[in-house]
Amino acid sequence: MLATVNSWAEQIRAGDIRAISKAITAIEDERPEAERLVRELFPHTGGGVIIGVTGAPGTGKSTLVDRLAARYRRSGQTVGIIAVDPTSPFSGGAVLGDRVRMQGHASDADIFIRSMATRGSLGGLAEATADAALVLDAAGKQVILIETVGVGQAEVDIVRLADCTLVVLVPGMGDDVQNLKAGVMEIADIFVLNKADHPAADRFERQLLAMLEIVPERDGWRPPLVRTIATEDKGTGELAGMIERFGSNAELAGGRRSRRRIEHWEYRLLGLLRKRLMSRVSRHLEPGQIEAMAVAVAGREKDPFTAIDELLEKAELK
Amino acid sequence: MLATVNSWAEQIRAGDIRAISKAITAIEDERPEAERLVRELFPHTGGGVIIGVTGAPGTGKSTLVDRLAARYRRSGQTVGIIAVDPTSPFSGGAVLGDRVRMQGHASDADIFIRSMATRGSLGGLAEATADAALVLDAAGKQVILIETVGVGQAEVDIVRLADCTLVVLVPGMGDDVQNLKAGVMEIADIFVLNKADHPAADRFERQLLAMLEIVPERDGWRPPLVRTIATEDKGTGELAGMIERFGSNAELAGGRRSRRRIEHWEYRLLGLLRKRLMSRVSRHLEPGQIEAMAVAVAGREKDPFTAIDELLEKAELK
Repeated sequence: MLATVNSWAEQIRAGDIRAISKAITAIEDERPEAERLVRELFPHTGGGVIIGVTGAPGTGKSTLVDRLAARYRRSGQTVGIIAVDPTSPFSGGAVLGDRVRMQGHASDADIFIRSMATRGSLGGLAEATADAALVLDAAGKQVILIETVGVGQAEVDIVRLADCTLVVLVPGMGDDVQNLKAGVMEIADIFVLNKADHPAADRFERQLLAMLEIVPERDGWRPPLVRTIATEDKGTGELAGMIERFGSNAELAGGRRSRRRIEHWEYRLLGLLRKRLMSRVSRHLEPGQIEAMAVAVAGREKDPFTAIDELLEKAELK
Repeated sequence: MLATVNSWAEQIRAGDIRAISKAITAIEDERPEAERLVRELFPHTGGGVIIGVTGAPGTGKSTLVDRLAARYRRSGQTVGIIAVDPTSPFSGGAVLGDRVRMQGHASDADIFIRSMATRGSLGGLAEATADAALVLDAAGKQVILIETVGVGQAEVDIVRLADCTLVVLVPGMGDDVQNLKAGVMEIADIFVLNKADHPAADRFERQLLAMLEIVPERDGWRPPLVRTIATEDKGTGELAGMIERFGSNAELAGGRRSRRRIEHWEYRLLGLLRKRLMSRVSRHLEPGQIEAMAVAVAGREKDPFTAIDELLEKAELK
């Protein structure tokens, strides 16, 4: 088995598409060999730049990601795309990201495109996305684009691993700018005003800029606004330039990029720790023991805190 | 301290509004006395019916909740309302729910209204909401309405504790019905088509009903659709009737309500277990130890799994 994981890792590092696909499926399914594989690949990661792209449905994120990917390819860089849909907690396989673009890039072996959806918990999805990014990184992808729908907590967790995060907005979505404010302000390194040929674009830009003015600078960087028309590939060159400028600024500002990576790992280590501890507990408990406690608590025979104490005792962790 | 918690619990059970408010603040802030208080109140809970109300921003949820609350009050029932906003992960105190309605019910001591926002994690918010509902339950509120924005995973977690969940939709929101499908289908016990006087309402209803037809029945119940115009208090009587019918059906169908409560407690016990285990680990670690590991991992000096093993060893949990 160890030998298999070793040769699997080698195939991935050589860029073998089927080996990469298989790895991401193993990660999604939380199969035990996935951990061994990521452990094996880990020393060969850290070279790729991860760009997170988030925004509400209908903002044209996917087209924008396609255009950026094509641009990076033209400049000779290898590209990986992961499209994540956290809004379907109950549905199985995703279709997001397997659309038009597949036709455009199908012949290009240096763009790897993969969609991911929630199988179980959302926390699990953020972790799986991060691991899939590690796989692409180890496979030599120089730019890894992670596309995710929306700007709720789930998306914040998912883009937490990005070196640079783009928030895509479009004019004419009513008061949505106001609604998104709090969360968006915190995660955006660059705002993209897509569909910039929309009649309401100028007014929208003014509102957004007014809002941005009150955002404090972080490390000498205030999130700029870039106008694009992704469908016509307009503004995407400027956007790519801005992403690079953000990267250089981050280095100049004393390793903001590395600081963000440290924060990402702190967060992930806590997640892994939680997972390890829980699997330890469940090893010590008989099947159905937690459900039996839940029955007692729902029936008010026991309060939840006493129930927990009893479970910990049974798991010899008290 | 114990005496204080005891008398605090007594005040809550007597319906003292300040004692209730203080309790929910303590829960939000995750103060240690909150756990002791909930433990104290717990045997006196389980009597209230919890109704979850969820839907996108702008669907008129709050007005609907107000109308339902007024209706329950008129029939002599005591009412508690908790308005939760999980879309602002970074902002502090919420304003949601403290609006117009406050004026309408301000003189009515038997409606308690409270808004809650994320302080830390989203998981924390779902837990805090559940505990706040226990407080209102112990305070003798017969109907507890929990209003939350959106239908993502966060909202699913929040409404998990509801005995009956309403999903509010409005016509004219484009292809949003399609987008929400997967998650909504699973959590809705009743669909509310609000703003039913909208020109597109009939078409929207037909689409929705077509979609509902393919949903399998659960315990002899297929989520029905109720049309309302909350601003004019139209359809809210029918809605209240449908909620009651759902409740009776649940009892007839062999305790669906109690089964759902058991599932809720199973979920919450797992959450509490996770929290206990993590606080145990952090007690054993020196401050900054996880961050130091994250630095090593981000610098690729150590893989994350080895880092976790070392942390568990330090916490004497290996």
